[in-house]
Amino acid sequence: MFRNVLYAQSGGVTSVINASASALILAARKQRAHIDHVYAGRNGIIGALDEDLIDTSLESDEAITLLAQTPGGAFGSCRHKLKSPEDNEAEYKRLIEVFKAHEIGYFFYNGGGDSMDTANKVSQYAASLGLNVKSIGVPKTIDNDLPMTDCCPGFGSAAKYIAVSTSEVALDVASMCATSTKLFVLEVMGRHAGWLAAAAGLAGKAPDDAPQIILFPEVAFDKARFLARVEKSIADNGYCVVVVSEGVRDAEGRFVSERGTRDSFGHAQLGGAGPAIAELVQGALGVKYHWAVADYMQRSARHLASATDVAQAKALGEAAVELAVQGETGMMPVIERRSDDPYQWRTGKAPLADVANVEKTMPKNFIRGDGFGITDAARAYLRPLIAGEDYPAYHQGLPQWALLKNISVARKLAPRAP
Amino acid sequence: MFRNVLYAQSGGVTSVINASASALILAARKQRAHIDHVYAGRNGIIGALDEDLIDTSLESDEAITLLAQTPGGAFGSCRHKLKSPEDNEAEYKRLIEVFKAHEIGYFFYNGGGDSMDTANKVSQYAASLGLNVKSIGVPKTIDNDLPMTDCCPGFGSAAKYIAVSTSEVALDVASMCATSTKLFVLEVMGRHAGWLAAAAGLAGKAPDDAPQIILFPEVAFDKARFLARVEKSIADNGYCVVVVSEGVRDAEGRFVSERGTRDSFGHAQLGGAGPAIAELVQGALGVKYHWAVADYMQRSARHLASATDVAQAKALGEAAVELAVQGETGMMPVIERRSDDPYQWRTGKAPLADVANVEKTMPKNFIRGDGFGITDAARAYLRPLIAGEDYPAYHQGLPQWALLKNISVARKLAPRAP
Repeated sequence: MFRNVLYAQSGGVTSVINASASALILAARKQRAHIDHVYAGRNGIIGALDEDLIDTSLESDEAITLLAQTPGGAFGSCRHKLKSPEDNEAEYKRLIEVFKAHEIGYFFYNGGGDSMDTANKVSQYAASLGLNVKSIGVPKTIDNDLPMTDCCPGFGSAAKYIAVSTSEVALDVASMCATSTKLFVLEVMGRHAGWLAAAAGLAGKAPDDAPQIILFPEVAFDKARFLARVEKSIADNGYCVVVVSEGVRDAEGRFVSERGTRDSFGHAQLGGAGPAIAELVQGALGVKYHWAVADYMQRSARHLASATDVAQAKALGEAAVELAVQGETGMMPVIERRSDDPYQWRTGKAPLADVANVEKTMPKNFIRGDGFGITDAARAYLRPLIAGEDYPAYHQGLPQWALLKNISVARKLAPRAP
Repeated sequence: MFRNVLYAQSGGVTSVINASASALILAARKQRAHIDHVYAGRNGIIGALDEDLIDTSLESDEAITLLAQTPGGAFGSCRHKLKSPEDNEAEYKRLIEVFKAHEIGYFFYNGGGDSMDTANKVSQYAASLGLNVKSIGVPKTIDNDLPMTDCCPGFGSAAKYIAVSTSEVALDVASMCATSTKLFVLEVMGRHAGWLAAAAGLAGKAPDDAPQIILFPEVAFDKARFLARVEKSIADNGYCVVVVSEGVRDAEGRFVSERGTRDSFGHAQLGGAGPAIAELVQGALGVKYHWAVADYMQRSARHLASATDVAQAKALGEAAVELAVQGETGMMPVIERRSDDPYQWRTGKAPLADVANVEKTMPKNFIRGDGFGITDAARAYLRPLIAGEDYPAYHQGLPQWALLKNISVARKLAPRAP
């Protein structure tokens, strides 16, 4: 079988996807009996289709080691979902053409649910042509929504960033509330599931601790109940910290971000759920507010990565190589939790067929009865995922990021048909 | 003279104002020849006027030491500017009444320009009554706009947070730009001066490095020139990172945040300069964008404090006590820079009269000729201020903050007249 690797990053990047890449490349370098070169798709699967490959063999061990502390996607990622071979066989044919031209025997696709589906289809399609390609998915998503694995690399670090930031801004607004800001709203990602919003709950213990209110996409937004809770928190604590998921909707399924900011003339809204919620409260209660939108900061904050998350991102990169050289295909390495406290985990594996097209939602018993906070079960699950600090090295006040050369592999094929 | 201290925090808090408080209290505890108790105004000067004082003597050395790694204002801050004694003598009379009742011989006011003015007036007013009160200002502001000092505690840490976050999100958007987000806008604080926006410039070296564009309040926003630069950056680099100060205005003095979001019916705008700038580009160039607003996160991010900033915040707290027990009044300890590289500094002092009501703006030679970046002179000034990491201790994934008891001093006076 072919002895080269094609590695590609997919979808929204995380602060630790490069930690998986780094561990995978370093592990592959040790597999001299099986593997020659690790190529990376420039801008993910698009690079594979365009035969735009990066030769990672030309990077030093030091550079690849530094990659593990570098956020973003070092080889470029992309948002491009391959349809099924039945609907778009041309892309699969092209992929196989590139595999053959560059002697790719191993395909590692580092992404979320769609990518696991693609990796599975590539495995099957190659096999249907009698081509021996080991196709392994490497999980990655701050959304934490992949099934079969206890958690997803990228989530723990984003969760830590959100929990710590919530804890910090809460101290700020608590200092100011006597004469100034009484409401602080932090908007976090999570369009379909409230995993990231839930992480903010770790910042406090009792219901009166900040964040006093978390708004989950799983709970229909009830304006009257929400405003009553804000008013009570300000009366009881002097202030209120609200963490709102970008995906919060009302009972009719309308995004809160639309409700608050679209005017009667239908003008497009600016900003998301955070400013909308803040404006809503201001209009009803007349309190001074501040809001923040973390956006990409929460998924690239490598300076505050969870040591658990980094260790798992690396372990899964290594496990992917291990599975492939053992002859597995159509598989994804996973995290198995053995105990909450003390936290113990190991890597395992799951068939990509069981992962693809299944979205893991947050268990109902993770959300408090009143819908505004998290339960002890959620705490027990979340706490170890944000544990430990894995700081990057700094120089002159700034983190040292890997600067890869990203040198292209010489093309061997004609450009693909547009 | 009286032997008790009154310490009060004022205005917007920072991630290191408590480091000044901690150092000041610990230094005062060592001055047994001069000082008995350190009282803190609950919610700043409001607490002093309301005779709502906290007895910090009841906190352990350990708690006060932990205070140095805790963001926010531990005793509460407030936005309340005392007028001059000529315009509102009642407040000064009340303050002196509280000073006498609690035997306050030392007044430390930890804040920005307005607070330095108040501290100066308190010094003069007490003297005019023949009362021996040493009134010392302790500088604090993320805006870095106090004169007579090389820099202000709180700025370096906010600057580090902005530089690091810009550097991180730039790697994220660079990974995504081939098929998705091509524009990222980060809004930072600084309504009058671009110090914080300038700090983002440390994330890159060459003009093509992110942030490719910084929008300063000092430079009138020129829509056409800005859009041309965004278009060029996307053409040259594939993406564009814009850091925008909340205070950016056009040549007519209108805030950019208003221009972009107020519709023709005069509906109030949501969100600030960040979303407005992103929408503007989207409308003109049709590119996919993301934006973030750091808001309070940038001034409370103790998890990423600059070691230089923390050391200076502490040094100024200690120097304040030193000045007071030496008999100085109407003074502010300052930071004097002795050299850029290697960075050397020491504390000095300046009369509050020279500090009050003077706003230090950013030197013209800190902004690049094209108005979109910073110069080498700015880098030389800024770089040492973000240098070094001063991490808080963590427990179970979260920083350990000081939890003070904040026990009230028994009241001795009748409530003040409303």
